[in-house]
Amino acid sequence: MAMKLYGVPMSTCTTRVMACLHEKGADFELVPVNLGTGEHKQPPFLSKNPFGQIPVLEDGDLTLFESRAITAYVAEKCKETGTDLMRHKNPKEAVMVKVWMEVESQTFNPAISPVVMEYVIGPSMGKKTEQAVVDACMGKLGKVLDVYESRLSMCKYLAGDFYSMADLHHLPFMHYFMTTPCASMVKDRPHVMAWWQDISSRPAFKKMVGAMTFG
Amino acid sequence: MAMKLYGVPMSTCTTRVMACLHEKGADFELVPVNLGTGEHKQPPFLSKNPFGQIPVLEDGDLTLFESRAITAYVAEKCKETGTDLMRHKNPKEAVMVKVWMEVESQTFNPAISPVVMEYVIGPSMGKKTEQAVVDACMGKLGKVLDVYESRLSMCKYLAGDFYSMADLHHLPFMHYFMTTPCASMVKDRPHVMAWWQDISSRPAFKKMVGAMTFG
Repeated sequence: MAMKLYGVPMSTCTTRVMACLHEKGADFELVPVNLGTGEHKQPPFLSKNPFGQIPVLEDGDLTLFESRAITAYVAEKCKETGTDLMRHKNPKEAVMVKVWMEVESQTFNPAISPVVMEYVIGPSMGKKTEQAVVDACMGKLGKVLDVYESRLSMCKYLAGDFYSMADLHHLPFMHYFMTTPCASMVKDRPHVMAWWQDISSRPAFKKMVGAMTFG
Repeated sequence: MAMKLYGVPMSTCTTRVMACLHEKGADFELVPVNLGTGEHKQPPFLSKNPFGQIPVLEDGDLTLFESRAITAYVAEKCKETGTDLMRHKNPKEAVMVKVWMEVESQTFNPAISPVVMEYVIGPSMGKKTEQAVVDACMGKLGKVLDVYESRLSMCKYLAGDFYSMADLHHLPFMHYFMTTPCASMVKDRPHVMAWWQDISSRPAFKKMVGAMTFG
């Protein structure tokens, strides 16, 4: 039976999981959740994820939430098929994947997500961009991207010379960020820009990027 | 050769790793980093972690950063010894550990860490507590702890009826939070309080809690 992914095709966290499922060639069904009516904040959805957030993955009797835990599950379940996102067979590469997955989660994401919220997601709901929030994040993001620029001048991808889950987890927020007036922060850093062009041109990402638009 | 952990004994991220090392009975040396002189923001430390943050773990020719990536590495390296923090032998339990590790990382930590910063870490550096920051976080944290209260009424620990990495990752911020005027948020939720009393009384945590104090 195919896995069921509850979410919406423009959501950053839903598409993080979808990119992984596509890389693995995994069979799944996307079950839409009506965010407009607050379906995710009511039962029965709350019985799937008590925090009321998308996405949720159901696989047989397993119900999982948190996009980064779901991608880890999919990578483990589909170890032998598709792209080896976790470098299962090479412990030294595998641990570097985990280090850079944590960098995305703890350092990159907190700096970039408020910018995307202010320029893309908020305005789609009629909210005005708060420039002070953007400005506060741009300084942080610049420092993060400086480290990325240096790292990506030494290896082709974040964890080494191989595409991995660490790169994949960046896709959704990078995609929306590149539509904002701040995109020059990436374009001005040649190694970061080359990396973005590379990872955003993968077939698994192109399959769904057309639906990644707000409003 | 023993692993080297670069950090300081009061740091939340250093102690997250130390709690894991102690649970595993792993041999390691704590190498102090002088935060006062900014040792972590200068070479040679920046060659270990380009983001200039503690902790860093060195194990032979491997150099790792990001506390949650380091604990994952230690759990994998010491799979057969000490507490089975990742439930390696039971895939269904293992995936629930990952789900609740991500809850800590994405939901719990962003809500609790600014409170600890405002009440504990900031004042130790002479900064005044900004009540508006605390207030903004308390609402979020209350909602998180409501879900925890419900979850912990169904199972003894977050991922199931077993102590795991998901619980362990909460230890450092919970420890400092319980010294703040906001601790009643935990004390007023009986299952969360019983969980906290349980996880904070583990020998691996007690070994180091005496040194966990600022200023």
